[in-house]
Amino acid sequence: MANTSLSVGIVGGSGYTGALLAELILKHPHAVLTSISSVSLAGGPVTAHLPRLRTDLAFCRESEIGDVDVAFVCCPHGEAAASARRLLNEGTRVIDLSADFRLSHALYAEWYGEHPCPELMPAVYGLTELHRKEIAAAALVANPGCYPTAALLALAPLQPLGLEDVIIDAKSGVSGAGKSAAPRTHFCSVDSDLVAYGVGSHRHYPEIAMGLGINGSGPSLTFVPHLVPLQRGIVETIYVRAAELPSAAGLRALYAAAYDGEAFVEISAAPPELKDVTGTNYCRIFATIDERAKRIVVIATIDNLMKGASGQAVQNMNVMFRRPEHHGLL
Amino acid sequence: MANTSLSVGIVGGSGYTGALLAELILKHPHAVLTSISSVSLAGGPVTAHLPRLRTDLAFCRESEIGDVDVAFVCCPHGEAAASARRLLNEGTRVIDLSADFRLSHALYAEWYGEHPCPELMPAVYGLTELHRKEIAAAALVANPGCYPTAALLALAPLQPLGLEDVIIDAKSGVSGAGKSAAPRTHFCSVDSDLVAYGVGSHRHYPEIAMGLGINGSGPSLTFVPHLVPLQRGIVETIYVRAAELPSAAGLRALYAAAYDGEAFVEISAAPPELKDVTGTNYCRIFATIDERAKRIVVIATIDNLMKGASGQAVQNMNVMFRRPEHHGLL
Amino acid sequence: MANTSLSVGIVGGSGYTGALLAELILKHPHAVLTSISSVSLAGGPVTAHLPRLRTDLAFCRESEIGDVDVAFVCCPHGEAAASARRLLNEGTRVIDLSADFRLSHALYAEWYGEHPCPELMPAVYGLTELHRKEIAAAALVANPGCYPTAALLALAPLQPLGLEDVIIDAKSGVSGAGKSAAPRTHFCSVDSDLVAYGVGSHRHYPEIAMGLGINGSGPSLTFVPHLVPLQRGIVETIYVRAAELPSAAGLRALYAAAYDGEAFVEISAAPPELKDVTGTNYCRIFATIDERAKRIVVIATIDNLMKGASGQAVQNMNVMFRRPEHHGLL
Amino acid sequence: MANTSLSVGIVGGSGYTGALLAELILKHPHAVLTSISSVSLAGGPVTAHLPRLRTDLAFCRESEIGDVDVAFVCCPHGEAAASARRLLNEGTRVIDLSADFRLSHALYAEWYGEHPCPELMPAVYGLTELHRKEIAAAALVANPGCYPTAALLALAPLQPLGLEDVIIDAKSGVSGAGKSAAPRTHFCSVDSDLVAYGVGSHRHYPEIAMGLGINGSGPSLTFVPHLVPLQRGIVETIYVRAAELPSAAGLRALYAAAYDGEAFVEISAAPPELKDVTGTNYCRIFATIDERAKRIVVIATIDNLMKGASGQAVQNMNVMFRRPEHHGLL
Repeated sequence: MANTSLSVGIVGGSGYTGALLAELILKHPHAVLTSISSVSLAGGPVTAHLPRLRTDLAFCRESEIGDVDVAFVCCPHGEAAASARRLLNEGTRVIDLSADFRLSHALYAEWYGEHPCPELMPAVYGLTELHRKEIAAAALVANPGCYPTAALLALAPLQPLGLEDVIIDAKSGVSGAGKSAAPRTHFCSVDSDLVAYGVGSHRHYPEIAMGLGINGSGPSLTFVPHLVPLQRGIVETIYVRAAELPSAAGLRALYAAAYDGEAFVEISAAPPELKDVTGTNYCRIFATIDERAKRIVVIATIDNLMKGASGQAVQNMNVMFRRPEHHGLL
Repeated sequence: MANTSLSVGIVGGSGYTGALLAELILKHPHAVLTSISSVSLAGGPVTAHLPRLRTDLAFCRESEIGDVDVAFVCCPHGEAAASARRLLNEGTRVIDLSADFRLSHALYAEWYGEHPCPELMPAVYGLTELHRKEIAAAALVANPGCYPTAALLALAPLQPLGLEDVIIDAKSGVSGAGKSAAPRTHFCSVDSDLVAYGVGSHRHYPEIAMGLGINGSGPSLTFVPHLVPLQRGIVETIYVRAAELPSAAGLRALYAAAYDGEAFVEISAAPPELKDVTGTNYCRIFATIDERAKRIVVIATIDNLMKGASGQAVQNMNVMFRRPEHHGLL
Repeated sequence: MANTSLSVGIVGGSGYTGALLAELILKHPHAVLTSISSVSLAGGPVTAHLPRLRTDLAFCRESEIGDVDVAFVCCPHGEAAASARRLLNEGTRVIDLSADFRLSHALYAEWYGEHPCPELMPAVYGLTELHRKEIAAAALVANPGCYPTAALLALAPLQPLGLEDVIIDAKSGVSGAGKSAAPRTHFCSVDSDLVAYGVGSHRHYPEIAMGLGINGSGPSLTFVPHLVPLQRGIVETIYVRAAELPSAAGLRALYAAAYDGEAFVEISAAPPELKDVTGTNYCRIFATIDERAKRIVVIATIDNLMKGASGQAVQNMNVMFRRPEHHGLL
Repeated sequence: MANTSLSVGIVGGSGYTGALLAELILKHPHAVLTSISSVSLAGGPVTAHLPRLRTDLAFCRESEIGDVDVAFVCCPHGEAAASARRLLNEGTRVIDLSADFRLSHALYAEWYGEHPCPELMPAVYGLTELHRKEIAAAALVANPGCYPTAALLALAPLQPLGLEDVIIDAKSGVSGAGKSAAPRTHFCSVDSDLVAYGVGSHRHYPEIAMGLGINGSGPSLTFVPHLVPLQRGIVETIYVRAAELPSAAGLRALYAAAYDGEAFVEISAAPPELKDVTGTNYCRIFATIDERAKRIVVIATIDNLMKGASGQAVQNMNVMFRRPEHHGLL
C-alpha cells in the first residue's frame, strides 16, 4: 500500500482550512484529491473559488464524499460530527478539523453542550508528536486546535519538572477567526489594531487544560489570546513556574530529548520570528530561564493554518497510512 | 501668567517624538513653538522634513535653543543629559524625553554605565497621574518610557493588595524602535511578522521595577516586549498575583478610586482596542479576575508616541505651568 | 449669527462618514451636535459604538432629527433622498453625503434608475473650491464622491488647455468601500493584495465626466479604481493630453492661479505621499510634464473620509453659514 | 544530461533574489545548490541568515563560485558584470539578475554610464515566453527587470495592432526596492502610505521601451511606478491606443494565440488579484476594451521576486538545460 496513492476527500472546501488542505493534497506525491464538497459552492468549478489551485474538480455535495481512503472534515463544529459519523460508518478513516472530538465528553458538555455523536468519543487526539502511535491506528482523529498545538508542544517537555503555574499569552493572525465576513474581521477593524479577546472564556482553554492533565487540581492555567494585524501565524509566550527550576543546560536537554529527530519541531536559540514558520508545518520553540523571577519563559510559534490545522492534518494522514511523515509538507 | 503663552523650544526635532511635540505645540492654545533644533537638518525649513506641520520655522542648532519657558529634549540618551544641563543652567525648565534621568543613579550605572550628569539626579519622574505635585514644582522632569507608562498606570491601583508576582507581556508598534532605518524596521521584516525581543534585557525593565519599588526584594517581575506589525501603540497584558485577591467589585473600586477625575486614564469594561487610543493621550485599562487561576489580569493600552512620550510631555508642561492639564491634548 | 453656534444633526451615524462627522462637529469651535441617528443603534449611547468620541448623546431615530440649522445625511443612496426631502420641507439646510443628488437627472436615470425625489434636483454640487458661491446660497448640497473630488480638483486648472484625453488611475484604501462586512473587505482579502475593480462600470465615472463637462462629445475619459491594502486615502495618477502642451512654468502657473489662497489645496513639488494628507482635509496635487510622451501627469491625493467626504462636508457647512472655511478642520 | 542534476552556484545570496533562488534550487528536482556567496556573510552558515532554508552550506566568497553548470548572479549592478565575465571565461553559463546586461550598449550608456564589460554585450534578454529559442542557446542571459516582465508580457500580443500610445501605471510591493534599510523602506514610512516615484526617470523605462521597439520614434510611452504597502507583487494597469481597435473577441483571440500552451501566463476573465500570483511564477493578464474611450486596458500581475526575478531565472535555467520549464516552479 505504501506505493499506491491515497484517495482523499475533503468535506467543506470553501473555508481556509479546506482550501489549504486541497492545495496540500494536490501537491502531495502520494495522494490524490478525488472529491471536495461545499454547501454554498456545490456544482461550481473549484478554481472559480480558488484560482491558485490546479485542478479540474468541481465542488460536490457533502453526501457525495465517500469511497476514499481518508476524508478530512472541515465543517463548523456541530455539523462536523454528523459527517464524520456517516463516513466512519462507510468505513472511511476520518481526520476531523473541527472542535467536535477534541474534548472529553464531560468537557464538551461543559463548554459546548450536548454532544451530537457521543458514541464516537473519545477520538484520538491528533497532536502528532505526542500521540503518534494512537494516531497510526485510529479510525477517527481529532485534529487539534491551533492554540493548543503550540501550547502543548511548548509545554510537554516541562511536564517532568512538575508544572505549578502556567500563563499563555497568545497572539494570532486573523485567519484563525475564519473566513466569514464580520465586523471584527473587516480590514479597517484589524489593521493598526490589537486587542485581547475571549479572556477567560476561549474554548481552546479546556483543550489546553486537558492536554496538560489539569482536572480541577493541578497547575493553575491562564490563557489570553490576542488578535494582531496579520493574516497567518501564532506566537505564544508562555510563563511557567515548575516545582523544579532547571539550569539553562538542563532546560536545553529537556527540549532536545523531547524533540530530537522530529521533522517539524525546531528548538531555536533565540525568540523565533513568526515569518520563519508561516507557510510551513514547523513549530519553532525557544525556552529560557528568567533568573530574576525564577521562572521559565517559552515562546512557540506556528502557522495556525499549517501546523495549527491543515498541515498537521496531512501529517496525521501520513502517520495513519504509514507514509513518510514529511511527505507533501516540505 | 496663566493667560500668557508659553514659549517652547524642542531639542531634536527630526525623530518621531520631537516631530509630534512640534505638532502638539503648534496646535496648543497657550504655547508657542519658538525654536526647534536638529543636528542633521539645521538650516532647512521644518516643513521640508515635516510637510504636515504649518510653520515657517527653520531647524536651528541645539545651542540656539534657549530663552524659552520650557524646553523638550528629544535627543538619544547620553546626548540629552548635556543639553538638559546647559538649559537648566540658563534657567530653562526641562522635560527630557530620553532615558537619561529616569533611573536612580545606581540603576543607571548598572544598565547604562557612568552617568554624564550625576549632579542633576534624581530628576522628577514624570508619570503625571502618580507624581503630579512634584512635577508641578520641578525644574527637570524625566518623561517616562512608553512601556513603563502603561505598566505603572495599570499596576499602581493594585499596590495596596501586596504585589507578589507580576508578568508584563507587552506588544508594541514599530515607532517605539525609533525612526532610524535598520534591518529590523524594514517593512518586509515587520509586515506579517511578530517577534519577542529583549527578553530579560530590555532597559525598561529597571524603570518598571523602580516604579514598583522592587529593589532586590519584593515581587518577582518578568517583562517580555514583542514587536507587532503596526506603527503606533502599545498593549500590555499583565498577570498579577497579590497577597490579597479582591472581589470583582473590589477590583473595580480600586481602579475607580485611583483614577476618578483623571482626564487621561479611562477604565474600560472590556479589553480595550489599541485603536481606541492611537492618536490620543489616553491610557485605557481593563482589569479582571481569572477565577480559575486566582489571578488578576490587567490590560493597558496607550499610544506609545502620545501618552508614552510626547503627549505626556505636554501634559507635564501643562502641570508645570499651571495650565489645564488637557490643553493641547484633546 | 457668526457668533452663535450652529446646531447640527447627523442622519446615519453608524458608518464611517457619519462617525467622522460626529467627531469633527464635536471638536468644531462654532457648532454643536444635537442629534445623531442610527437605524441599528437607536437608543444606545453613542460612545458604546464610538468609544473615541466624548459625548453623552444617544443615537436617535431618523425622524427625531430636526430643528437644527443643518443636517448631514449619511444614509445609503436611495434612502438619503427621502430624508433630505423631509428635512428640507421642515426648513433645515441639508448636506447630503450619499450619491443621490450628485448627478444630473438624466445621468442618474442611466446609472441608478428612477430618482426618488426628482423635484429636488439639481442640487448644488459641493466641491467647495469650484462652487463656493452656489454652496453659500444652497438649501441642499450634494457632497461629492471621493474619487471625483480628487479628480476634479486635479483637472480643473487644465481645462483652459483644452482636455482631449484623460485617464484616471485611482488607488483607494478600504474605508471607501464602507463599513459593511463583506468577503471583499475581510482583512485576509485585503492585506497583501491589490486589485482593480469596477473597470468601466464604477458609478463615480459619470460624476467625474459631468464635472469635466463631458457629454457624449468632448475628451475621452477612462477611470480605473484599485483597492489597496490601507485604511484611508486615495491617490489618483492622471494622464492627460490637451490641445495645448504648456511649459513646466506654464503648468505651475495654472495651478498657482487656480488655488492661490485656498486653505485646503496644496501644490506639491514632488509626488505627494498619501500620509501627508491622511487625517486632514487637504488635497495635495503634483503636476508635471512627461516630455517624451508630450503628456501631462497629475497626481492628487486626499483622505477619502475627510476631503473626500466628511471633511469637505464640514467645509461646506462653514461656507453655507459664513464661518471661516477652515474652522473645525485644522 | 536530462537525467543528471545540474550543479548551481549563486553569486550574492544575502538579498531577496539570491535567497529566493537558493530556496527554489533546494526544492528543484533536478538541480543541486553547490555554492552560494555573500560578501558580508562569507564563512557563516546559510541557515543563520536564512532560517527557513534546509541546507548545510556556508556562504562562500564570490571567487569560490565556479565549476558549476550554471551560476546566477545577484549582485548590485556594476558588480554583476565583473562576476559574469569571470564565470563565462571559466566556461560557466550565467543568468544575471542585475541590470547590467538588459539594455543595449547605447541605452546603457545613456541611463547608467560607461559599461564595465562591453565585450559581453548584447546578452540574450531572458523574457522566457518571448525569447525562448535564444535563451536555450545562450551563454549569458540577462534576466529581465520586474516591471518590464509584466509590461512586455501584457503588451506583446497587442503589437500586431500597431501600438500608438502606451501608459503603464505600475504598483509594486516594497521588496522591489531591495533589502537595504533606508528611510524609504522603514515600516512606518510604507505602512498606510502610497506614493509615486521615479516619474519619468525610472531605469526600467528604457528596458520597457527597448522591449517594445521604441527607438526615438514609435509609440509614446509613459511609465509611472508607485510604492504600495505590501511586501511582494506588482500590478500594472496599462492603457493602450493602437492603430486598430479590436473587438472583444478579437482581443481575446490575440491573447489566446500568444500564450496558448504557456505554463506561466494565464489569461484572466476579470481583473486579477495580486494574491493569486504571489509566491508563484505566474503572470496573470486581463485585457478589456474601454468602449467609451476607444482604448484597450490591460492589467498584468506578477510576483516581482518570482516571475519578476528568481522564478523566471529558474525558468530560464530549465530552458537552457532542456529541462521541463515548470520544474522547481510549481
